[in-house]
Amino acid sequence: MSPTPSVLIVGTGLIGSSVGLALCREGLDVTLEDADAAHLRVAVSIGAGTPGPPATDPDLVVVAVPPSLVAPVTAEVLRRYPRAPVTDVGSTKQAALSQLRATVGSGALDRYVGSHPMAGSERSGPLAAQADLFAGRTWAVTPHPEAGPEAVRAVECLARRCSAVPVRLSPAAHDEAVALVSHLPQVAASVVGGLLSGAADDQLVLAGQGVRDVTRIAASDPDLWSQILAVNAEPVARLLHEAAGGLERFAELLDRGPALSGPADPVVGELRALLGRGVEGAARLPGKHGRQPRAYASVPVVVPDRPGALAGLFTEVEAVGVNIEDVRIDHSPGVPVGLVELFVGHEDEGRLLDALGQHGWTVHR
Amino acid sequence: MSPTPSVLIVGTGLIGSSVGLALCREGLDVTLEDADAAHLRVAVSIGAGTPGPPATDPDLVVVAVPPSLVAPVTAEVLRRYPRAPVTDVGSTKQAALSQLRATVGSGALDRYVGSHPMAGSERSGPLAAQADLFAGRTWAVTPHPEAGPEAVRAVECLARRCSAVPVRLSPAAHDEAVALVSHLPQVAASVVGGLLSGAADDQLVLAGQGVRDVTRIAASDPDLWSQILAVNAEPVARLLHEAAGGLERFAELLDRGPALSGPADPVVGELRALLGRGVEGAARLPGKHGRQPRAYASVPVVVPDRPGALAGLFTEVEAVGVNIEDVRIDHSPGVPVGLVELFVGHEDEGRLLDALGQHGWTVHR
Repeated sequence: MSPTPSVLIVGTGLIGSSVGLALCREGLDVTLEDADAAHLRVAVSIGAGTPGPPATDPDLVVVAVPPSLVAPVTAEVLRRYPRAPVTDVGSTKQAALSQLRATVGSGALDRYVGSHPMAGSERSGPLAAQADLFAGRTWAVTPHPEAGPEAVRAVECLARRCSAVPVRLSPAAHDEAVALVSHLPQVAASVVGGLLSGAADDQLVLAGQGVRDVTRIAASDPDLWSQILAVNAEPVARLLHEAAGGLERFAELLDRGPALSGPADPVVGELRALLGRGVEGAARLPGKHGRQPRAYASVPVVVPDRPGALAGLFTEVEAVGVNIEDVRIDHSPGVPVGLVELFVGHEDEGRLLDALGQHGWTVHR
Repeated sequence: MSPTPSVLIVGTGLIGSSVGLALCREGLDVTLEDADAAHLRVAVSIGAGTPGPPATDPDLVVVAVPPSLVAPVTAEVLRRYPRAPVTDVGSTKQAALSQLRATVGSGALDRYVGSHPMAGSERSGPLAAQADLFAGRTWAVTPHPEAGPEAVRAVECLARRCSAVPVRLSPAAHDEAVALVSHLPQVAASVVGGLLSGAADDQLVLAGQGVRDVTRIAASDPDLWSQILAVNAEPVARLLHEAAGGLERFAELLDRGPALSGPADPVVGELRALLGRGVEGAARLPGKHGRQPRAYASVPVVVPDRPGALAGLFTEVEAVGVNIEDVRIDHSPGVPVGLVELFVGHEDEGRLLDALGQHGWTVHR
């Protein structure tokens, strides 16, 4: 982008407005457009940019509209600004690209490069926008064969201006990847959640942290997700058939009846092998900061449920000089005592346990 | 239990040893038995009890052995101690009960009441034992028709001595409930995890918190879980067929091809309805402390990834006098900045946002 680059953002929902906030903070000249006048007003009022159209042709156009509008809106801005690179931030990349090929022709396609910031929120709309929404997140940049290198560079620069980490993939590889790491887990969570909807209250009293984790994203917006799934239909359907087959394999083993002969039972052996594949796959997820997975040491501490208890704990930990990599607070039914699990580097575990124990914390070793 | 009650615990794995630690802390006279001499030695050394057999007949026997051994070991202690109430802490309740009916006859069954503390750990064995493992957790107590009221009371008293909250259910209701809230989510997580095991590295770089949450429990011990599933075969198989059918319904809608006509497309409408059932079901999970679900306000704060940063944040929060209900630390690829999401009561949200903003924290509104 040139000195004082100008960016037009079309669509001022959560993602568009967050991009606007991030770029304004960087001192860029941001103009905003939205068919929804109320959204546009809110986005302008929170400082995400000034209302469009831009006074001069923009250096970059960002299309941040609902999945089904990505292709037509992108085609329109490619026509309207015959020199500007254009990206969209939609959740899938191939469908929009095929539609664009059919409508704008390959002539203008060198200026289009799709992208997808891996960030979101359960909330939506410009009021939920955050300048830091993309900080430290992966931003997939998905050049197609006709994409010009300048357009690719402009989109990678956009990602960096938003403090994200650009990662290049082909549109097809992107869609396959999100089908696996995002769309499949979403549907699995929704299906488990759906089965809970018919449960009796006294069944749910036995629910622990496991089912909460598995179904957390089941709370996501059905409006948005129904469109995301529909647009990435083919790879998602393939994985869902596979996953359904996976559940059926477990079910068929169990249909043979309870295996009461113990661990040596052949059914138990086959179940163990299937469960083992899950252990393997889950361990492949990248750890914090994109490093290879690393098992942190877990230090579980009993903490009374009152204001200040957590602060006291973290102040202790600060005094010891240990970096906390993750925290989990355990939800307990009926009792005002919580279990806080601190995840720290293995090298810090002993020191932290000793120090907390000495200062009167109930620590599980 | 009488004054200075005596408890025999058979099996000194994670659960048995944790019960021993909790009861010893309460001043009870605890003896331990285990076919595995090494486990028994460790359990005794950490203070979970003294090696059995007990000098006099125990006031209560707790059977804490692997799923396939619950029935034979329970039958043996019912015979060995003809007056003591006996409970087991196995993950399912009906299979063991049927086996006991067939072996000990209904005469001794009045002294047997199964139970199931809803607590565990990714770790296993006596070294992972914790006196507080059950603090604040639900402890299912599952009387059958022949169970005597004294035995039921003894088991509920055991749960309370371990700081757990006893909840009565029939053995059948228990097994149905854990199939739904524990065994189904476990298999769903394992199947999604299993599909990740074949993924390419550059697919996994797009993984976010969603898939991590969905697959966290996929890391659980396949040895233990294969037995748990096998013993609760019938209700689990039924739910797995239902869940597979749920995934297939999504897949069949998507097999009709990408729905590019937008939110009004009938396929999108059907997907939306299926996703909506998931939202409903997930919202029914009991919230913290067994209260009805309550949406906490989320306050996302940007925190540099260095020792002391979290402590500083929690100290700020303490100064404001706000109780933190949950914490989530977001994992960012490649950048030493973290996003910490604080969950607080809605009444505290504005106050916390103001205070953190005033003290220089980057807070997302």
